[in-house]
Amino acid sequence: MRIAVDAVGGDSYPKVQIEGAIEALEKNDNINVILLGPEELIAKELNNYSFNKNKISIFNAPQIIGMDESPAKAVKMKVKSSIVLGLALQKKGKCDAFISAGNTGALLAASTFILGKLEGVLRPTIAALYPTIKGFRLLVDAGANLEVKPEMLYQFAIMGKVYSEQVLGVENPRIGLLNVGEEEEKGTEVLKETYKLLSKTPNFIGNIEGRDILPCNADVFVCDGLIGNITLKFGESLVEAFQILIGQGIKKNKLSEEQQQIVLKVISDVISPFDYQAVGGVPFLGVDGVSLVGHGSSSSRAIKNMILNAALCVENKVNSKIVSSLKN
Amino acid sequence: MRIAVDAVGGDSYPKVQIEGAIEALEKNDNINVILLGPEELIAKELNNYSFNKNKISIFNAPQIIGMDESPAKAVKMKVKSSIVLGLALQKKGKCDAFISAGNTGALLAASTFILGKLEGVLRPTIAALYPTIKGFRLLVDAGANLEVKPEMLYQFAIMGKVYSEQVLGVENPRIGLLNVGEEEEKGTEVLKETYKLLSKTPNFIGNIEGRDILPCNADVFVCDGLIGNITLKFGESLVEAFQILIGQGIKKNKLSEEQQQIVLKVISDVISPFDYQAVGGVPFLGVDGVSLVGHGSSSSRAIKNMILNAALCVENKVNSKIVSSLKN
Repeated sequence: MRIAVDAVGGDSYPKVQIEGAIEALEKNDNINVILLGPEELIAKELNNYSFNKNKISIFNAPQIIGMDESPAKAVKMKVKSSIVLGLALQKKGKCDAFISAGNTGALLAASTFILGKLEGVLRPTIAALYPTIKGFRLLVDAGANLEVKPEMLYQFAIMGKVYSEQVLGVENPRIGLLNVGEEEEKGTEVLKETYKLLSKTPNFIGNIEGRDILPCNADVFVCDGLIGNITLKFGESLVEAFQILIGQGIKKNKLSEEQQQIVLKVISDVISPFDYQAVGGVPFLGVDGVSLVGHGSSSSRAIKNMILNAALCVENKVNSKIVSSLKN
Repeated sequence: MRIAVDAVGGDSYPKVQIEGAIEALEKNDNINVILLGPEELIAKELNNYSFNKNKISIFNAPQIIGMDESPAKAVKMKVKSSIVLGLALQKKGKCDAFISAGNTGALLAASTFILGKLEGVLRPTIAALYPTIKGFRLLVDAGANLEVKPEMLYQFAIMGKVYSEQVLGVENPRIGLLNVGEEEEKGTEVLKETYKLLSKTPNFIGNIEGRDILPCNADVFVCDGLIGNITLKFGESLVEAFQILIGQGIKKNKLSEEQQQIVLKVISDVISPFDYQAVGGVPFLGVDGVSLVGHGSSSSRAIKNMILNAALCVENKVNSKIVSSLKN
């Protein structure tokens, strides 16, 4: 299994990509990694590491798409970028998956454009991992589709369910439709129609509310990309806001050094479920291939986990399971 | 100034309403309170308290609208309920404001139906108070209008700004439009149009993201009721999720009794900004009158604060300021 890795995405390339690749190879014997980016840059950094030379290769992609570049324009203009060439390799069957910690918009545009849509899929979607008190769960759509039709939300739910099962390892994932109340007649026309479409799905638990996310009252949270993006970013800001408040609390209570350590230890345990590095990245679902994207600040651990998740997508045939689920 | 109080709303009536009213009278000399509900029930409870008899009166409203009753139906059928009669008193000019900790939907329906819309207002809206690291700020709409037009969002922003200034005491409140990114061209067509409409408003700071709520990067957060309701309930669930995680952290770290006390003291300081009782309730904005609603679990402190906020709406002429702001 060949996983193509964008070696020049994010804030700390190519170091975290190389280290992440080496760590992933130690975890899964079936993986080969192709690093994409300017050949010299990668080769020079690779020299600092010892690894199985049969398992890691370089594919020269001289152009780099910056984190702030306009996605559509960058993908169109930079045809020799790691993102465009990596996905093209996959399209040609020369690798099985692509991962990147680079420009999310560019990766979404290029994935849809180059890989194309999976059979039966109306709109590819980007999922996100939502931190709950029981660990990460899937939120879909996270911002790719701001305006949706009921049929799209229905498909997001089905695709999210397959990914949760096959990659996140959630057994019988419960699908919940984010809404303003639990009753079937609540919400907009789009939500009411979506409820009807989903009502035939065995794992659909009905409408859920904003207060159901953190206590993990569902495993796949379905909503449009506007709601998904806003709640996701809100969730991501929790830890920092909390740390500020804890700092103020420590100061106000004039804690001794020793007392501070106790508080900080408990807090660090409390916020550990919210550690995004542990999950690596999120999938584009509904494209005819495997494409995952991670935070620009991804560590080598995040890259490793992204590679392993991409491998799970391939090994567990996520896409063919999506296609057959959508036919039911 | 006469404030009508629904004495039979919420979980702990009429005790919290009576105590809240007495506490409010101590804070603001200009207030008279009219308690609405079954006369005997209220009179009996009132007997337990000493208070200025000239300041508190009872208005008999024999019917009670339950927390779970269908709003439209309840308002139509229970014409002798505290909610319907309290708002009718206001409509007739026999009181200046109405507050309730009862059925929010019923209060919204009755407020719009009985008080009518304020001059120039397209849709009345319900605001919510959003906890930030700098204290409570206003989110509008919180669930009354799930599908909106740009002109409505524009009006929500203006009404929210007036309330923030006049009642919450925020100086020069910054208006932010919740969106998926900061750039003007981001978001749905409705959001792009709203951005244009708001761009002439001096205090408009542009699009803001989900991560801008907790750090208080705006003072009035504008969105449709679907987004507002979901993010609000998500925010309201934070404290409980947090307490569960802290409990687990304390257990895992096997803290002594004394160490636990230190952690819990810091945590209690940290979550104190998220105490809804301190703010009491939220306003329906855009109705031709003053109508505030609080949580069913409102304490006497919450009721007191709701009465004081209602008085501020009257004293600071919130409604006439909204009308003139909308004309600009």
